Amino acid sequence: MSGILVNGLPGESVPATDRAIQYGDGLFETIAVRRGRPELWSAHMARLRKGCERLGIGMPDPAVLLREALQLARGQERAVLKIILSRGSGGRGYRPPDTPSPLRILSLHPWPEWPREFWLKGVATRICATRLGRNGQLAGIKHLNRLEQVLARAEWREPAIAEGLMLDSEGMLVEGTMSNLFLVRDGVLQTPDLSRCGVAGIMREVVLEAAGRRGIPYEITSLRRKDLELAQELFLTNSIIGLWPVRRVGRRDYAAPGSVTSLLQKDVEDTRSRVST
Amino acid sequence: MSGILVNGLPGESVPATDRAIQYGDGLFETIAVRRGRPELWSAHMARLRKGCERLGIGMPDPAVLLREALQLARGQERAVLKIILSRGSGGRGYRPPDTPSPLRILSLHPWPEWPREFWLKGVATRICATRLGRNGQLAGIKHLNRLEQVLARAEWREPAIAEGLMLDSEGMLVEGTMSNLFLVRDGVLQTPDLSRCGVAGIMREVVLEAAGRRGIPYEITSLRRKDLELAQELFLTNSIIGLWPVRRVGRRDYAAPGSVTSLLQKDVEDTRSRVST
Repeated sequence: MSGILVNGLPGESVPATDRAIQYGDGLFETIAVRRGRPELWSAHMARLRKGCERLGIGMPDPAVLLREALQLARGQERAVLKIILSRGSGGRGYRPPDTPSPLRILSLHPWPEWPREFWLKGVATRICATRLGRNGQLAGIKHLNRLEQVLARAEWREPAIAEGLMLDSEGMLVEGTMSNLFLVRDGVLQTPDLSRCGVAGIMREVVLEAAGRRGIPYEITSLRRKDLELAQELFLTNSIIGLWPVRRVGRRDYAAPGSVTSLLQKDVEDTRSRVST
Repeated sequence: MSGILVNGLPGESVPATDRAIQYGDGLFETIAVRRGRPELWSAHMARLRKGCERLGIGMPDPAVLLREALQLARGQERAVLKIILSRGSGGRGYRPPDTPSPLRILSLHPWPEWPREFWLKGVATRICATRLGRNGQLAGIKHLNRLEQVLARAEWREPAIAEGLMLDSEGMLVEGTMSNLFLVRDGVLQTPDLSRCGVAGIMREVVLEAAGRRGIPYEITSLRRKDLELAQELFLTNSIIGLWPVRRVGRRDYAAPGSVTSLLQKDVEDTRSRVST
């Protein structure tokens, strides 16, 4: 249950001169596969295109990517598809090559085995010491410079801790190492503004749209650590987990799942089971 | 005139699962080769070791790296040696593998052909719009997350502009895209503090030591864009160029080389011709 396509051909390796290796000069997407189909495909392609525009990398033809994705996903009930798009090979030096040949790597991975309780009763989390630097040009997109997340995720090994929450260099709350963060305070849904750092998740969009449809008021805003104390409910989202309620941050317990969280969790699952590519 | 060793063996490719590709999870060094020997080898190894400690990657045996470096550099009058050290392959997910196998890539590149005037009369530079995010954990080391430098270097294509100067997210002056920056103001040498971002260059250390030996007062300090206006001399350093005087930043001209710059340029060249590995 795995496979890799490098520029459309089965392969296990990448040229050592590739700029993803040299500089992290590229983008990625992590996509859930269900019954042989990638979920929320057009949303992932829209984010990849936005990242390409931001970095000045040529967006591959989504039809080609979809064909390759379907080839890898064929017959898979549940799997994770990862797409890496690099600017390609280039000489030594930061300057992008004049005529770049972007490289795409599609790989299929086993579906992670998380306990069912993570969805039903929520997850325990911690606050990471590793901070996120601010850079508006890189904020929102899913680029390959991920050392901050690697260092944050290396801070704990206890399997009971499912995720770590990250602050930026100025102490603002941003996201989890692999997920977006939502708070519910007095009936209002809140999620951190991602204009200076963080990844704008596909499932974050799904939640915000669901909140809009339900008439749940929401704000995308600046949040600090103390806002965690003021919230009654917390939850995390990403394209693989969908929505996990949070039952604990450090030593503080939360009711999980809270009532707003439960509604939105149902909407997320409905969206995932409904969408076709 | 080139060659690549991947974990000591001639090769052109890297496993697609490597974490340098996935996350930029690794370090690099760029080293001048003269007459078959890498320059300032022990200083480069010391910085690589510091980076390994910071990222939690096992430092390879420097004797092995030196053997491989000498193998590639044999018979080369002038060349550039690049060492990439990745955390190695791992599963999908930010968490570092429990038993990592770091990957090393040594590659040899042609010596860049810059005009002799760059050293004799100085270079023209610009101020980049791309900013550097602040992260003390990643500051100083030469890690593989270099999208900020890539975007900054993509801002201009005029060959007459040799380098771009970068500010951090709060407007502090940090470095060039590929070099460290020095100012001389009223006889005092100044260089930006790199505790929040930037790469602590090997040649920067050489310059600071030379200034100490000569009794030139220096400070490692917070500098802003306006400090460029107050300086009489500017120069740039890195392991390949050595020291370039700056004759222009945007529309502001500087005497180049200034008198302090000339003294330190001579010291840099003396150090480079004297050192053996």
